Amino acid sequence: MSTNFNSSSSAPSLRTRVVRESQRAVYDREVVYQILDEAFLCHVGFVVEEQPFVIPTSYGRDGDLLYIHGSAASRMLRNLDQGVPVCVTVTLLDGLVLARSVFNHSMNYRSVVILGTATLVDDPAEKLAALRALSEHIIPGRWDDSRQPNEKELRATSVLRLPISEFSAKVRVGPAVDDEQDYSFPTWAGVIPLETVVGTAIRDERCQQEMPTYLRNYSRKVKP
Amino acid sequence: MSTNFNSSSSAPSLRTRVVRESQRAVYDREVVYQILDEAFLCHVGFVVEEQPFVIPTSYGRDGDLLYIHGSAASRMLRNLDQGVPVCVTVTLLDGLVLARSVFNHSMNYRSVVILGTATLVDDPAEKLAALRALSEHIIPGRWDDSRQPNEKELRATSVLRLPISEFSAKVRVGPAVDDEQDYSFPTWAGVIPLETVVGTAIRDERCQQEMPTYLRNYSRKVKP
Repeated sequence: MSTNFNSSSSAPSLRTRVVRESQRAVYDREVVYQILDEAFLCHVGFVVEEQPFVIPTSYGRDGDLLYIHGSAASRMLRNLDQGVPVCVTVTLLDGLVLARSVFNHSMNYRSVVILGTATLVDDPAEKLAALRALSEHIIPGRWDDSRQPNEKELRATSVLRLPISEFSAKVRVGPAVDDEQDYSFPTWAGVIPLETVVGTAIRDERCQQEMPTYLRNYSRKVKP
Repeated sequence: MSTNFNSSSSAPSLRTRVVRESQRAVYDREVVYQILDEAFLCHVGFVVEEQPFVIPTSYGRDGDLLYIHGSAASRMLRNLDQGVPVCVTVTLLDGLVLARSVFNHSMNYRSVVILGTATLVDDPAEKLAALRALSEHIIPGRWDDSRQPNEKELRATSVLRLPISEFSAKVRVGPAVDDEQDYSFPTWAGVIPLETVVGTAIRDERCQQEMPTYLRNYSRKVKP
């Protein structure tokens, strides 16, 4: 069963209009930002000589801008002048949906697709702010508790900027939905939740520091 | 710190040669298959009118073939005649690596990139076998315990075939690596493990069946 969102929605572009299972489509910016804020890993797609490449990397969000760590996309950056067309996809997997029929098996998930032109962040002040946004997106509180980047490190780091303007999301929640005549089929049916959890931290051998609060309470669940 | 694999490796193509952090590159088929077998979600990249699209979907493996559930790629399938160039990327995130310096922060991860031409599986027998491989890849034992697909459902399902021939992997494991002069910087350093875990199953309201063993013991960890 899919969610129905009745809050104010942005009209999708022809390119971001969800084609399949369109009842799962969400074009609401607030919902999209909730998904973007819970995850921090994206898959960036770009094209080199007609061949698509998809590279995992981390991202941060600053308002309506997405900042992508450029290190993963060195192939892309070679060709970057006026920016490159990208697709950034973020997926949170919430569970396996076991129906009675093979055909109605599904997954519960929340995913966002953003299309646009990614450009290199050149301005040193914006780059520093973007890196901070990236770091704080992944571990809030970490930036100020780390040795700050020096000029050489900043030069060695590339960050890409992508406006969050052409986007869509797909969300599936809830139980299995079987064809009516299948409900009597004798098999277990239901949802097996999947969750990304934080394990026991492994302190570095050469570290004597106590773990700070922002790490002890670390979780990807977005605080309401 | 990166892993060093000394087992027999395939030579990477120019396109799959890892450009950045090449010390993390792995071209060993066995390692790649371990990653592919632990995950079941991939991100498929394809190109429509010069725009890349990246769509999450599930996959299964049968020997040196990857089968991708085609439902996620309806945009791609519209243009599918002799097959479409794709990039299939699979990422397992294992932890956040907290160094003393912002610059040396990293992630522990295992990722695989497969390039190639995806073709539609037309033959009904291969399609049925591919769907079975997909299902068994996600939940071993489930296929035989479900209502089998009928002809109409098979026709409504599309599966893509991708040979696993042009591929590479990147793996990062181990502790933070700081510049020597940073080890005295007073901050916590170490690794915060991240893991996908299986939550408590939610039985369907209309289901009276006991949970079978293959579900009670469900885990993504690959048995040795």
